Amino acid sequence: MKSLAKGRLIGVGTGPGDPELLTLKAVRALGEADVVAHFAKRGNKSNARAIVETHVRPTWIELPLLYPVTTEIDRENNDYREQITSFYEESVQTIANHLENGRTVAVLSEGDPLFYGSYMHLHVRLSQRYDTEVIPGITAMSGCWSQTGIPIVQGDDVLSVLPGTMSEFELARRLADTDAAVIMKVGRNLPKIRSALDAAGKLADAIYVERATMTNTTSMRLADKGDDDAPYFAIVLVPGWRQKP
Amino acid sequence: MKSLAKGRLIGVGTGPGDPELLTLKAVRALGEADVVAHFAKRGNKSNARAIVETHVRPTWIELPLLYPVTTEIDRENNDYREQITSFYEESVQTIANHLENGRTVAVLSEGDPLFYGSYMHLHVRLSQRYDTEVIPGITAMSGCWSQTGIPIVQGDDVLSVLPGTMSEFELARRLADTDAAVIMKVGRNLPKIRSALDAAGKLADAIYVERATMTNTTSMRLADKGDDDAPYFAIVLVPGWRQKP
Repeated sequence: MKSLAKGRLIGVGTGPGDPELLTLKAVRALGEADVVAHFAKRGNKSNARAIVETHVRPTWIELPLLYPVTTEIDRENNDYREQITSFYEESVQTIANHLENGRTVAVLSEGDPLFYGSYMHLHVRLSQRYDTEVIPGITAMSGCWSQTGIPIVQGDDVLSVLPGTMSEFELARRLADTDAAVIMKVGRNLPKIRSALDAAGKLADAIYVERATMTNTTSMRLADKGDDDAPYFAIVLVPGWRQKP
Repeated sequence: MKSLAKGRLIGVGTGPGDPELLTLKAVRALGEADVVAHFAKRGNKSNARAIVETHVRPTWIELPLLYPVTTEIDRENNDYREQITSFYEESVQTIANHLENGRTVAVLSEGDPLFYGSYMHLHVRLSQRYDTEVIPGITAMSGCWSQTGIPIVQGDDVLSVLPGTMSEFELARRLADTDAAVIMKVGRNLPKIRSALDAAGKLADAIYVERATMTNTTSMRLADKGDDDAPYFAIVLVPGWRQKP
């Protein structure tokens, strides 16, 4: 049972980086929010919070949610799971307290909230108890193909979104079995991703994009990239659309 | 060589239907446009044009681009290919004339321009000759999972975007080999999609969504849908995210 007398939870997609890629609906939600929560690595600033900088209201209660761990520990490690679960439980409790007090809580989410976003960990724990709305955002992958002007899929193309964390064999198998692909979580997986693309015969088609739609973005054919330095959130695109009318 | 003295081409993603899901950048582009082009089936109104209704300027030169054929003829048919190719060539010529005259031409694209959008047929023919920008839009699939509040992918999930037009065998094979899936182009393919989901053991998880984010939207568990009536643009979601921390 949802209680409308209580506060409202809004998952707000902020898009990939360019503040102009906020939707009108996201901007309205920022204007209605009493509490604005944003995730960041401890010691870092939230990217999502930076994207909404020009929409900040002095009346906001800001609620930074700081991950206790991110990529330092393996995700399959029990210690990682315990720390991250406690973190989500505590964040949920803090947000629930605001909602119980009738406040509208906006949780910022870079990209799209329900597409690989941290927001969904709060969503599944709160949306059954409180009135909840999710405002979609432009995904990072869409920022990548729009910025580079590369048609990603057309007609009856199959698109596979693949994490760069999977094994080289599995990555190569899936790359060979799709028309188009987006490889997420590149970072230190880049050498493996190159080999998998090569094995699938698609290295020549691959485009590497860093920080799409941000002012310091860069992109190039992956085959032209001379080093294997890549941030975790870099993306590799393999465009489909072989059969053009 | 791009000539900046000539007009500018802008592919404008309008999002899935809710006019509030336009981005700030799309709204700015609509304000800068001299010519606004929009695709529609002959005799129908353009959905993308309807989405931007409140941003229409009296100074716009409106350019409806009317498909000679859509789903009446098989895409593999030569007659279809000839008609649709001529249509794109003529549309390109009309737009190029405006660009040669220094006009800014915005081409509206429902959802995201380079993600299964008709805009890309114009883009590949014009972007080498004219200054071009693509403004990404919220995709229909993102509208679907946001509206229904269903986390689609998390962590190391693989997402497969599959056209409902493929064979039942191929669809079932790919559904069994992915964490999450989005099935596009549902329409008359719905009975086949049901069978493929059943064969892959995923029918119970599937969510059916019609006209996401529009006022007349509807969604339900596919297993609860009693008939096989579905519009072409309906979407079926199979959420991933098995391993929650």
